[in-house]
Amino acid sequence: MDLSKGKQLIEGPLKLVGLGIESIVEGAKAAGANVVEVTFQPPAGGDATRMRALAKLFEPPLAEKIDAANQIALERLLESRPTLVGVGVAREVIPGMSDDLILHAGPPITWERMAGPLRGAIIGGLIYEGKATTPEEAEALAASGKIRFDPCHHHHAVGPMAGVVTASMPVWIVEDMAGANAGNRTYCTLNEGLGKVLRFGAYNDEVVTRLKFIERTLGPVLGRTMAGRGPIDLKMIMAQALQMGDEGHNRNRAGTSLLFRELAPAMVRFGGEAEDVAKCLDFISKNDHFILNLTMPMAKCMLMATEGIAHATVLSVMARNGTDFGIQVASMPGRWFTGPAQLIRGLYFPGFTDEHANPDIGDSAITETAGFGAFCMAAAPAIVQFVGGTVNDALKNSRQMGRITVGKNSLFQIPALGFEGSPTGIDVRLVEEKNQLPVINTGIAHKAAGVGQVGAGLVSPPWECFHQALTAIVEQENA
Amino acid sequence: MDLSKGKQLIEGPLKLVGLGIESIVEGAKAAGANVVEVTFQPPAGGDATRMRALAKLFEPPLAEKIDAANQIALERLLESRPTLVGVGVAREVIPGMSDDLILHAGPPITWERMAGPLRGAIIGGLIYEGKATTPEEAEALAASGKIRFDPCHHHHAVGPMAGVVTASMPVWIVEDMAGANAGNRTYCTLNEGLGKVLRFGAYNDEVVTRLKFIERTLGPVLGRTMAGRGPIDLKMIMAQALQMGDEGHNRNRAGTSLLFRELAPAMVRFGGEAEDVAKCLDFISKNDHFILNLTMPMAKCMLMATEGIAHATVLSVMARNGTDFGIQVASMPGRWFTGPAQLIRGLYFPGFTDEHANPDIGDSAITETAGFGAFCMAAAPAIVQFVGGTVNDALKNSRQMGRITVGKNSLFQIPALGFEGSPTGIDVRLVEEKNQLPVINTGIAHKAAGVGQVGAGLVSPPWECFHQALTAIVEQENA
Repeated sequence: MDLSKGKQLIEGPLKLVGLGIESIVEGAKAAGANVVEVTFQPPAGGDATRMRALAKLFEPPLAEKIDAANQIALERLLESRPTLVGVGVAREVIPGMSDDLILHAGPPITWERMAGPLRGAIIGGLIYEGKATTPEEAEALAASGKIRFDPCHHHHAVGPMAGVVTASMPVWIVEDMAGANAGNRTYCTLNEGLGKVLRFGAYNDEVVTRLKFIERTLGPVLGRTMAGRGPIDLKMIMAQALQMGDEGHNRNRAGTSLLFRELAPAMVRFGGEAEDVAKCLDFISKNDHFILNLTMPMAKCMLMATEGIAHATVLSVMARNGTDFGIQVASMPGRWFTGPAQLIRGLYFPGFTDEHANPDIGDSAITETAGFGAFCMAAAPAIVQFVGGTVNDALKNSRQMGRITVGKNSLFQIPALGFEGSPTGIDVRLVEEKNQLPVINTGIAHKAAGVGQVGAGLVSPPWECFHQALTAIVEQENA
Repeated sequence: MDLSKGKQLIEGPLKLVGLGIESIVEGAKAAGANVVEVTFQPPAGGDATRMRALAKLFEPPLAEKIDAANQIALERLLESRPTLVGVGVAREVIPGMSDDLILHAGPPITWERMAGPLRGAIIGGLIYEGKATTPEEAEALAASGKIRFDPCHHHHAVGPMAGVVTASMPVWIVEDMAGANAGNRTYCTLNEGLGKVLRFGAYNDEVVTRLKFIERTLGPVLGRTMAGRGPIDLKMIMAQALQMGDEGHNRNRAGTSLLFRELAPAMVRFGGEAEDVAKCLDFISKNDHFILNLTMPMAKCMLMATEGIAHATVLSVMARNGTDFGIQVASMPGRWFTGPAQLIRGLYFPGFTDEHANPDIGDSAITETAGFGAFCMAAAPAIVQFVGGTVNDALKNSRQMGRITVGKNSLFQIPALGFEGSPTGIDVRLVEEKNQLPVINTGIAHKAAGVGQVGAGLVSPPWECFHQALTAIVEQENA
């Protein structure tokens, strides 16, 4: 274990170093000693049970077994090749999807415990599907038990913010084209843009009209386009976008532009009527975040390749439903470790404050789980103007994430760090040892249903997720 | 004057500091003294005449007059709004263009003194125009005196590398939409892409066939597109591209992508036949440098706004024809100060070395003259992989250019330098005072006609240009 966290550069004459034991420090100060106080953080926050558990996981031979498993997980993640292969309709292509099922972001949750923006998106989804005509009807239906709710992740799907997927929505189909998990498929809806949108919990006519455009025009045009042009390698676009100021979560201007360049000629050739194609080109061109709904299933696809590797302690999922934050560990696929979703530290749109903010929501933390997003903030200095902070904060952030990850993704390079690979593979053990939570950058939704986005910022999972995961790992290993 | 250039951090015990006067230093060393040698560079390279000239230009009241004029020049440059307004045919839209005239990059030059790549491009241009059927015929015609040659800059045009413009070529039309110089128009051909291309001196069938596609399909499609959609603000695209890893000279992937997003929907609506539009979309999408031929006339348009400001000592032009490097000063529009084009320090494509390289060529140094290109290399870390060097070199480069420029462009921000504005307005006085030439990044053409690009790197103008300009400024001011 690395106990060096307490070290810091100390200049000048030194009489005594205080490590936080107040009675001693105060006594020494009172006696006139020159005391330099440094923050000493023992591993696992100093909790005796967790420190013992951690020690076991870092001791041979178990440590070697876990290290080897984590390296296999990293290799699988790196060798996966998530490829955009087409567009389908949710009910036809997502495994287990049906007309009475609504998918949502984060770990499982009942209607009663759902946060405002998730409820808002479900209300909008039911109106969009024609199952309700008013928000009141939709709420009554949602509470009636006639509609089932499931996490996107239980269906190989991911969704930004509320992450609501209903049966009629068109979805991207991403397929792993390489490695041990070739053939894995993941899914995500098409990005709606900013403003009043379903994923932030808005459900007015504007929202539903746009969803109908996506269903009737954008989805079919892109479906024909992909069928005509053939697959698109998403990792190559992401690699380029990281050289162009994106981090693939909240900064997506470059990736969207590169995807647009790939799609546009084929949209003209295969997409259908010229005016429909022009409308779709306009719609994509005006939405810098269009590719987010592809970086997410790309990340999910990369991480699916790590699922089921015995002994691996790296995360395969981080996801939030607006009430709970849930993580999954690669060696225990499908098992959630949850804690309360946190409030986001960030910048608010004019007229809004943290009083209006819903806690953390969305499957988009899958980007950080796969080693980009906030983990690559050093590649996206412009994002600090969006989430707050300075360019140096962004650099520091990427370096800190290097302390809790098991390797680097040499394809996803960060120019400002001398083209170093992105820190990849969050190890539950390292998070506990370094007392360093993963950092996520994210939009902030209004806490009431029907409003929408109010800001953006940085957030971390609650410690509970990692403490539970640590306990489960120790139990699993009989350590 | 700042005489601090000789300073450097000196550690350890110090007996004597040697400033380069060898006899003293060597004598002291021989006597056993501990000598630290530092490079002392007096202003103007220590030339007595130029030092006196410089001193006059930095003394009140002349200094105030020049400073004020340079600030006006900077303001005019910053307030200009170069806007893409359309596409026309060179003979119809470029002032003074005619069928027996060929425009080229750099200062004026005769056929006899032209370098290989410029000759190659002229051969290609004559074949393309149907004035010759073989390279030999074209050379004979070029040497006959029946064809006139003029710098692009004499016609408000700019051209990358050889910069050849013939009468039938489609050209972008850029118009200044704001400031004292609203209505100024500049021109540039449409970028051909990489590989065997006219601008690098190639002239085979592939080159001519592509030029015909540009004339018959791309130009008309883009002309109809621009007429249908209306103008595009080029500075806004450049500002965004600098946040996305471009510097607007040799790294243009982001700007090309953003321009593509602006153009594509309108190309579908107004461009004409779907298959023609699809071909044009493909052509643009596959050429990361497509926007170079718009960043150049944008820069030219910004700098035209500075021309004719009495007393201004900032540059309005830097341009090379492959034999000579020429600069112009804002207060003396149209007057060239020239010296020999330099060899480029850079990286070569496999199979080529500096033996194959032609000296510096092209009007593209107009980008550096306007404060971007190599002046913004810190914004484009990926470019160091193309021209050689490290990310730190790129940062250093942008900082050094700040020493010879009169201000910052707050719209063109460099993220890696804390969003500092790009160093803008190269002052002849500062170049001489700091002994610091402007840095330019550039492609390297093969020195023989007909070959093409062999590498890319960094280069500077020859000192002669600045020495002549300094003399002319002093004469003009009767100083």
